[in-house]
Amino acid sequence: MTARPGTTRTATTDVRVTSLHGGSLERPDRVVTEEPLEIRAGGPGETPRPLAVTMRTPGHDFELGAGFLHGEGFLRDTTIRSVRYCDVPPDEQQFNIVTVLLDQPLDPTTPARAFTTSSSCGTCGKASIDEVEAACARVLSGPPASMPASVITALPDGLRRAQRVFGLTGGLHAAGLFTPAGDLLLVREDVGRHNAVDKIVGHGVLDGTLPYHDLVLMVSGRVSFEIVQKAAMAGIPVLCAVSAPSSLAVDAAERLGVTLVGFLRDGSGNVYTHRTRIDPKR
Amino acid sequence: MTARPGTTRTATTDVRVTSLHGGSLERPDRVVTEEPLEIRAGGPGETPRPLAVTMRTPGHDFELGAGFLHGEGFLRDTTIRSVRYCDVPPDEQQFNIVTVLLDQPLDPTTPARAFTTSSSCGTCGKASIDEVEAACARVLSGPPASMPASVITALPDGLRRAQRVFGLTGGLHAAGLFTPAGDLLLVREDVGRHNAVDKIVGHGVLDGTLPYHDLVLMVSGRVSFEIVQKAAMAGIPVLCAVSAPSSLAVDAAERLGVTLVGFLRDGSGNVYTHRTRIDPKR
Repeated sequence: MTARPGTTRTATTDVRVTSLHGGSLERPDRVVTEEPLEIRAGGPGETPRPLAVTMRTPGHDFELGAGFLHGEGFLRDTTIRSVRYCDVPPDEQQFNIVTVLLDQPLDPTTPARAFTTSSSCGTCGKASIDEVEAACARVLSGPPASMPASVITALPDGLRRAQRVFGLTGGLHAAGLFTPAGDLLLVREDVGRHNAVDKIVGHGVLDGTLPYHDLVLMVSGRVSFEIVQKAAMAGIPVLCAVSAPSSLAVDAAERLGVTLVGFLRDGSGNVYTHRTRIDPKR
Repeated sequence: MTARPGTTRTATTDVRVTSLHGGSLERPDRVVTEEPLEIRAGGPGETPRPLAVTMRTPGHDFELGAGFLHGEGFLRDTTIRSVRYCDVPPDEQQFNIVTVLLDQPLDPTTPARAFTTSSSCGTCGKASIDEVEAACARVLSGPPASMPASVITALPDGLRRAQRVFGLTGGLHAAGLFTPAGDLLLVREDVGRHNAVDKIVGHGVLDGTLPYHDLVLMVSGRVSFEIVQKAAMAGIPVLCAVSAPSSLAVDAAERLGVTLVGFLRDGSGNVYTHRTRIDPKR
């Protein structure tokens, strides 16, 4: 390893490996980069407070910061004025700290709570669905007409083709935002599944296209509670995943109004909740 | 969904699904259970403090609590007197709260720090490898002689055969502890990859078999930094994974003295660090 934490800003890192059967013969290889990112936020005249540290793959860090704040409810009563990397003092962690400046002061009650939900795990520390229900309106929107099942089953291929870093390293999660016609709008990759979703949401926060009322989110792995929460907070009506959902994911999707599709692979898939948004006959 | 959070103590939960092409025909299915677990700890005469909330699959909760505390360094200067579920007041969250009673008071400086590392993400908030290096001795032990590569390549099958809940739900991570001869000693499954490892380590904490100096840990997914950290804290010399490692995982394994094997599948694998513990010719 030549890269040290804080010095790498690329999504992949060069390493040397040997095959299990390769004797002492080393060959170069690439792994996905994992680096800590500290997210700070503050309003006018406030010293920005550290709210979270997440282990992430460098790239789209401003989106990650914005999306994290959105998913945690920090942007309900304020907007983002600017996002920047740490500039004083310059040190090797410069690009591992993102500061989000807000138009309103941070709620003084937020820091303690934010610290208990510090990581990419998102909802740890406020695990009750009731609380999430209170924080985000039930998703009542959706594609104007039922989406054809054939469009849904084509999403995994669309996502896979766009996973640039996965092809190089085999080592990370992806999230993709699609139209109801199945066109890919945005893809983000990250070692943390929550980070990939935060980046997708943060993109919409920063360019003003949130909420994603008529769009479909597809994730590469499993679906846990907090992925459903992040989708619902972003107003996303249809959430699809290559792998299995958890019990709390199904429960949250039911109560928050999200159509949840799991095991979406090989031309098939299971619909767990709110199936009327999908037309099985087309 | 009939199960509500806090009422489920089983690893799987019954749901109803429709196939994407199945029209309105519902069929019963099972998903892996995901529930929050709050971990509290305290010394003699102290009111136990909540240190973390993690989303986990119910089962082996005492191991999870003990393993979490071990991985976070809380057990460096004390031992565990008892572990119990919440008993007063009895409510529906009773089995979602685990209290660990210690023989020594909690370090008064720990709560703030613990809260910043609140989740199953483990090392969020203290992301520097330097800090982990200070917290756990470099792993200098290992199998008495080099392990045959052929034993290593057989581990994924051994783990897969023992994954009971995965077979039912397809929805969770597994971690298995093996002897250098490839015999499976212990397997734990969980929606959270960190939880599966915490349960393995917690088992050793509770029955006094830690550190795992001559054993091999195999995990079902990818390897991030915190999995390496947890292995090193438990004294495990060889860490194997079905999927890819991250850059920080490789870096940490190199510095902490752990042999890291990735992409262990289909009879092959890549060795990233400390290859002398494995004999490629056998």
